[in-house]
Amino acid sequence: MKRRDMLGLAAGTLGLAACGEKAAPAAAAGSAGQPAPAKADKPIQWTMYTTWPRNFPGLGSGAAHLAESIGRLSAGRLTVKLYGAGERVPALEVFDAVARGSAQMGHGAAYYWKGKAPAAPFFTCVPFGFTAAEQNAWLEFGGGNALWRELYAQFNLVPFAAGNTGTQMGGWFRQPIRSLDDLKGLKIRMPGLGGEVLARLGAATVNIPGGEIFTALSTGTIDATEWVGPYNDLAFGLHKAAKHYYYSGWHEPGPTLEAIVNKEAFDALPDDLQAIVEAACAQTNLRMQSEYVARNQQALETLVNEHGVTLHAWPEAVLTALRDTAATVVADFAAADTFAAKVYASYKAFRDQVLPYSRLAEEHFLRTRQPDGGA
Amino acid sequence: MKRRDMLGLAAGTLGLAACGEKAAPAAAAGSAGQPAPAKADKPIQWTMYTTWPRNFPGLGSGAAHLAESIGRLSAGRLTVKLYGAGERVPALEVFDAVARGSAQMGHGAAYYWKGKAPAAPFFTCVPFGFTAAEQNAWLEFGGGNALWRELYAQFNLVPFAAGNTGTQMGGWFRQPIRSLDDLKGLKIRMPGLGGEVLARLGAATVNIPGGEIFTALSTGTIDATEWVGPYNDLAFGLHKAAKHYYYSGWHEPGPTLEAIVNKEAFDALPDDLQAIVEAACAQTNLRMQSEYVARNQQALETLVNEHGVTLHAWPEAVLTALRDTAATVVADFAAADTFAAKVYASYKAFRDQVLPYSRLAEEHFLRTRQPDGGA
Repeated sequence: MKRRDMLGLAAGTLGLAACGEKAAPAAAAGSAGQPAPAKADKPIQWTMYTTWPRNFPGLGSGAAHLAESIGRLSAGRLTVKLYGAGERVPALEVFDAVARGSAQMGHGAAYYWKGKAPAAPFFTCVPFGFTAAEQNAWLEFGGGNALWRELYAQFNLVPFAAGNTGTQMGGWFRQPIRSLDDLKGLKIRMPGLGGEVLARLGAATVNIPGGEIFTALSTGTIDATEWVGPYNDLAFGLHKAAKHYYYSGWHEPGPTLEAIVNKEAFDALPDDLQAIVEAACAQTNLRMQSEYVARNQQALETLVNEHGVTLHAWPEAVLTALRDTAATVVADFAAADTFAAKVYASYKAFRDQVLPYSRLAEEHFLRTRQPDGGA
Repeated sequence: MKRRDMLGLAAGTLGLAACGEKAAPAAAAGSAGQPAPAKADKPIQWTMYTTWPRNFPGLGSGAAHLAESIGRLSAGRLTVKLYGAGERVPALEVFDAVARGSAQMGHGAAYYWKGKAPAAPFFTCVPFGFTAAEQNAWLEFGGGNALWRELYAQFNLVPFAAGNTGTQMGGWFRQPIRSLDDLKGLKIRMPGLGGEVLARLGAATVNIPGGEIFTALSTGTIDATEWVGPYNDLAFGLHKAAKHYYYSGWHEPGPTLEAIVNKEAFDALPDDLQAIVEAACAQTNLRMQSEYVARNQQALETLVNEHGVTLHAWPEAVLTALRDTAATVVADFAAADTFAAKVYASYKAFRDQVLPYSRLAEEHFLRTRQPDGGA
């Protein structure tokens, strides 16, 4: 757990209180004949809880970027103080804490809350579902955001897409997966609908927060885990506890990370501060994916070249079974809850509306870009 | 050109002056004990020129979203009035007009300015180069934005990524392209480095603004054209002048649209308004790609099913020649200009850093998502 401690310590030096300092030059600029930034009688101070270790690469640093951006965009009229997982509440209690107003804001992933709201995982990702670009499009132009807001309003929350990891890796296994039999009885950490798929195939799936995965894997509490991808998995040291690393992440092809805001706190903001929260989330959404795209390959090379990790593509028969099972499991899961059924219908309609072009365009292009890829 | 006129007319009804109206409820909210939005003594009013017809789907509506977002985020302290191509200056004079301060802001594409700045096309796209996600990552985390700012500072401009179309289509041809011979002497509209590739293969390439393509194609001034993809190409009615539609858009796999700001106007803004311009551009960047993802397939179905358009994958031999030629042409093009060589070196370094993981992750996933795609 040393790595986690290091990340915790590093957090202190980033100092989110810097939001206020950053705003200072803006105030000074007002004297040069430019419109002065807003001088609020009482600056609003929000607290943000996250499900990630503070400043964990990508996820935690994305949440920190979000907090800092809100402070800068509002010239300090709305500042956000961030706490990592476990600093105020445990990772998987962030949803409830923000709902009851202990914090005004949270950062995490919707699929963590599937026990409270069975429709929630659709707002993160669907196995063999949308890539990041398709997920963003569904939320913005396919009705996804409206459904997400309707669902979370029942919990006194307002959700925003505020991050994406891009396509993940398939996970870490202590023993290679050679056939479907190797999944039976496997104790694996996998949240969301992907975990439901593995459960149907006989695995014992659990969800535990990121910061606890390494210990669970190295002590044998679990046999395997997915987390994110090379950039994040290296940071947690998962390669020290398992050496077989599978691609691609069929279960999380482009998962959305969420910001949640206490509904009363959000409704009390003037229109421009509401717009600032929304814009900062969109900016963080884009920026976080860029960070993963930029950093994954270097981390993968470190894992393979310096730590002896073995990369595996999923065996074809396993992949086919996963895909077939996913279609059934997702449909069954959605059918068991009225709101989830409504969200699934929206997801499916949008899928039919975008996948054929994705195939002609991005998929065809990626196949042709590689000299040895078929067209 | 009726279609273009229709778009022009529709523009009037959208009324970007609405920025001011939208800010009004925010001001009212101040009385409820919340911090009041900024009351500038003199709200700043900017003008934005675009290279697109006003409110042209995706591109023009993206520019309109950007202008509206800046107004809302700043509670009306900075408003932006938008003009479409030709309303104040011709499309391809936007760069110069913003540089000299006739307008404070512009929206277009960097590759239109390759005659002035040979490095500019790299900030839009490279043939067989980055997808949208990779391009965004290069700009933000690979040094791209810093180089772009350095280049444009020479022209008194500050650039921002402010849109992306995702992977485009390969273009419209009046006669099918069966072999490389069919490219020789072909008069085709293709801007940027893609046009350089076709020129090397014997085509006569030209750049003309979007709004003039249909006339050029239907009168035979050109034999073929690329524009964007189904959503935009249907809007311009290109299918009325050519029936053969090729995929994928090897020349524009994920092109960035740009916002440019007059450097003196930008430097005069207080820090929070600078941050607001930047955040609104990022928000528009993400949103525009989502709009294309959401709308392309429906438009493609209309083109094929209602307008008798024939879809073609590029013949394998043509694609291979395009790819081989692109590698040489881009290198030669970059070598002819000191700054372009510097940008190309940055592009190449980042390419080596991201493409292997893209292949394991997004490409592998897309291949496995489709039931008949190989893994």
